[in-house]
Amino acid sequence: MKWGRGKTEDGLTITGVIVDETFHPRARLGSEIPAGAPIPLSKITLLTPVVPGKFIGLWNNYKAAAEKGGFAHPTHPLYFFKADSSLSGPGAQVALPAAAGRVVFEGELGIVIGKTCKNVTPDEAESAIFGYTCVNDITSLDILNADPSFPQWTRAKSFDGFGVVGPTIETDIDWQALTVKTRVNGRERQSYETADMILPPARIVSLLSQDMTLNPGDLIACGTSLGARPIKAGMEVEVSIEGIGGVSVTMTE
Amino acid sequence: MKWGRGKTEDGLTITGVIVDETFHPRARLGSEIPAGAPIPLSKITLLTPVVPGKFIGLWNNYKAAAEKGGFAHPTHPLYFFKADSSLSGPGAQVALPAAAGRVVFEGELGIVIGKTCKNVTPDEAESAIFGYTCVNDITSLDILNADPSFPQWTRAKSFDGFGVVGPTIETDIDWQALTVKTRVNGRERQSYETADMILPPARIVSLLSQDMTLNPGDLIACGTSLGARPIKAGMEVEVSIEGIGGVSVTMTE
Repeated sequence: MKWGRGKTEDGLTITGVIVDETFHPRARLGSEIPAGAPIPLSKITLLTPVVPGKFIGLWNNYKAAAEKGGFAHPTHPLYFFKADSSLSGPGAQVALPAAAGRVVFEGELGIVIGKTCKNVTPDEAESAIFGYTCVNDITSLDILNADPSFPQWTRAKSFDGFGVVGPTIETDIDWQALTVKTRVNGRERQSYETADMILPPARIVSLLSQDMTLNPGDLIACGTSLGARPIKAGMEVEVSIEGIGGVSVTMTE
Repeated sequence: MKWGRGKTEDGLTITGVIVDETFHPRARLGSEIPAGAPIPLSKITLLTPVVPGKFIGLWNNYKAAAEKGGFAHPTHPLYFFKADSSLSGPGAQVALPAAAGRVVFEGELGIVIGKTCKNVTPDEAESAIFGYTCVNDITSLDILNADPSFPQWTRAKSFDGFGVVGPTIETDIDWQALTVKTRVNGRERQSYETADMILPPARIVSLLSQDMTLNPGDLIACGTSLGARPIKAGMEVEVSIEGIGGVSVTMTE
């Protein structure tokens, strides 16, 4: 089942299920309660499918990238948070601030949490996962490494618009069989299989829940693999996963 | 003016102004619109005075601590986010997870944002500051330094309860004249003057607003100075600032 969030022509923000070309409003993410008549998808402007309380991003979670970087495989997720204000949805314009310098795309699989969980086992974690979405974890490499005394993961990842999420959340999908692709102006620049993950989704959720309470709507970007590249104003950058869809944004000055 | 948030005996969560021993409910933080009859403060359980969309914490923002650590003075805030789930208010019990290892308190001044701001000057930032509160930015030193490839600022700061905020927000106060004190079981362990800050509040807000949009309720902990120390189960830890009040929590296993 595909879940989305969008704006109607009347300016209302709604959440619901998308079937073929129709948006079926629901009371909230995961709810079976209808919240209005079905609306043609063409009349909805899709937003990020969720507004997460926590937007967690993992570093170093793909074997191919760890091997290339010479990094040991983590046994606990290594992570940062992206700002709520960094969220941007399908079709957004994302400004590249001059201060951000060299900026790269990072196509990733996103996990959306469906149930509150704390200290859960991987099995329990599995059932706490609501579904999966696409994430472009846009990152300023210059900011990240600007200060030798303090790697600025938070700042590098949190400029307005740097957290691209969408287009929808797919609840019925086998994460092990997915390929994450990033295209820049239509040209494929990143293509890697999620089966190469070091810590798989249920284990990520279980381990994170040992640190902190995860709540419905929380979003975890599973980290990127090889192929992240610099992006510049004017470029259209799409992250797509077959079965979920693609989320595309345009970079601006 | 003192603003607080609390739970009534009926289980309602309310925001309002505290005058002497009376809580005057208001429509929301900063609103002049009454939202019910005044309630004796004794009948309210105070919560964190705000639920921030972003809970930003600064590192290395006091001259005395920078000198001791041998750190250069930053010209832009060096920061991390604390999880929404890390919030804890006055009188909370804060568990020390075994995985957290060595944990320290960090008494800090907190800035509460009152207006949406992006790319604002220090003067504009000054008027976007709603008020000030006390923060105990509890931190696991063992987690922070556990992985040589990735300093875990986010994880070290984000265990449930590690973001202590309160008891109230004071809107009429001169931040330059304050002393932050931390007491452990009543014994003063930290006492430093906010005048020793490297980047002062309006400059912090102005510079952060160049990175990202700040929204009403966002909270910025200004960093700590000398005197942070390990805490253990059973200890009562209070951070207080004259004119704002004190927020105390009890550490548990």
